[in-house]
Amino acid sequence: MMARPVVALIASRDSLAETMARIATEVEQALDDLMPMPEGAEARLVEAMRYATLGGGKRMRAFLVMQAAALFGVDRRCAARVAASIEMMHAYSLVHDDLPAMDNDDLRRGKPSTHKAFDEATAILAGDALQARAFEVLAEPDTHSNPEARCELVLALGFASGSRGMAGGQMIDMVAPTLRAAGQPMGAPEITRLQALKTGRLIQFSAEAGAILGRAPGMQRHLLAAYGRDLGAAFQIADDLLDAEASTDDLGKTAGKDAATGKATMVAVLGIERARMQADMLAEQAASHLDSFAEAGASEDAMQAAETLRALAAYVVKRRS
Amino acid sequence: MMARPVVALIASRDSLAETMARIATEVEQALDDLMPMPEGAEARLVEAMRYATLGGGKRMRAFLVMQAAALFGVDRRCAARVAASIEMMHAYSLVHDDLPAMDNDDLRRGKPSTHKAFDEATAILAGDALQARAFEVLAEPDTHSNPEARCELVLALGFASGSRGMAGGQMIDMVAPTLRAAGQPMGAPEITRLQALKTGRLIQFSAEAGAILGRAPGMQRHLLAAYGRDLGAAFQIADDLLDAEASTDDLGKTAGKDAATGKATMVAVLGIERARMQADMLAEQAASHLDSFAEAGASEDAMQAAETLRALAAYVVKRRS
Repeated sequence: MMARPVVALIASRDSLAETMARIATEVEQALDDLMPMPEGAEARLVEAMRYATLGGGKRMRAFLVMQAAALFGVDRRCAARVAASIEMMHAYSLVHDDLPAMDNDDLRRGKPSTHKAFDEATAILAGDALQARAFEVLAEPDTHSNPEARCELVLALGFASGSRGMAGGQMIDMVAPTLRAAGQPMGAPEITRLQALKTGRLIQFSAEAGAILGRAPGMQRHLLAAYGRDLGAAFQIADDLLDAEASTDDLGKTAGKDAATGKATMVAVLGIERARMQADMLAEQAASHLDSFAEAGASEDAMQAAETLRALAAYVVKRRS
Repeated sequence: MMARPVVALIASRDSLAETMARIATEVEQALDDLMPMPEGAEARLVEAMRYATLGGGKRMRAFLVMQAAALFGVDRRCAARVAASIEMMHAYSLVHDDLPAMDNDDLRRGKPSTHKAFDEATAILAGDALQARAFEVLAEPDTHSNPEARCELVLALGFASGSRGMAGGQMIDMVAPTLRAAGQPMGAPEITRLQALKTGRLIQFSAEAGAILGRAPGMQRHLLAAYGRDLGAAFQIADDLLDAEASTDDLGKTAGKDAATGKATMVAVLGIERARMQADMLAEQAASHLDSFAEAGASEDAMQAAETLRALAAYVVKRRS
């Protein structure tokens, strides 16, 4: 399992963007391998699953898994499977969020959303089947030689994506207008919680998954979870800032929707300047959790991975798309 | 784990219906325990999950898990958790199947379907979160002391419910009208495959789960899978016969929909009489796989469980609702 330690993920002059692109290619290949086209009439379903998952996105969650796994010298074929599983889960959530009954968005990653490219029923089913495949991949022996580690991955993904995570956060987002109309608008603490559930938990799990794969001591797993939590919070505020400031062309999805729909975001509550300060503060805090990984005694690979994860924290609050 | 062997599931004069009702109550309690109401604004999501899962249904899948587990003396608290997980999965599939974009059915188990009682977006999310919870429950240590067994359960559920199972079968069902319009109507073999995927795989897994929990030898697991497969096929034909012959009041869901929508069923292809013969044949075949479990040397509990499972096969083709 640990036979092929992760090679240096960034060469000295390699930029973060290049490293991200390289890992995106690697995870794309894993996704392709994990969703082969079947023979029967169910082929249309797998086609929709592949459409929703392949060929797009920054793969930030996958990047987190791969880099966090590199901290512990995990075989990168194993890490790529977990990265692919999390990207399937993320993709399913986007497919369902884009449905007419939900956010009703026709554009995703610069392409028609899945229910537009196929149809609503196929999009619902493709999301469902992606979720099942994501859990299945985690439980497969190829993901880790130790079944205890595989169970921990399944448990953590279930927590991150169910009613106490992603789906719960989406629900809070949906009831927010009703609360506002009833004179109970969400303040910064409520929005922070909403975002922690809706997007934060899965990002946190992506970082934590590296520690689970590496059978890391509890304290190190805890530090990675803290890194993922703060990074996720910073990322979400940055995302809301982009929605407020960038163009649809830059984003590859409809821009300016939050303000138009009166969505509860930190930008709406704090204003652009204070929201940006908050995102920067969270990104710095995220990076600080990794201090101990870059200390003397760590392997070259681990030190590079820690540096890359710190660079990512800076990147998520500076990106323009 | 194996400390509390299953007590006799049917007393000598106890009817199958009474045993089913008793197990339904037990699994209802497990479902209730596994989905506690949260404090936050995501409460509406858990409310919808509970609405979709609690208080209804014959719990045939749960019954299969409990009886198959009894063959191997599995602690029934563990078996009830797996039974609850499978019922969550079944419930999520019903919630999504009933959506306007899918079968558009307003009635389920004699109550408004989840998207009618709540709204479409909440129903989509509740299905998603039920699926996540189902996998999570299987991976929790309380389900089995051996993480290898928990991983096998997750794997088997993933296979039974994803593109190679339930979701794949639903997709085939959806493309059937297009195939028919293109002059390629499905015959009996294609419909058998459709139904094996759409409903059969999860029923098969329900029976197999007992063997996984009991760490049974490969041959016994194989026999239970074969029982579940044939039982599932018989059950589905019986279900289609009921749709053709029973009333909406009897069913608690809209009757006569298959003929009205030109759905591909064995009843449509073979006619009522031949379809009934086919169901009876499959039910007998299902029961025959359990012969070796009732042989001399088996415990009293195991023999009773085997008899009950054989009685279930007879019941599924005779039931009137």
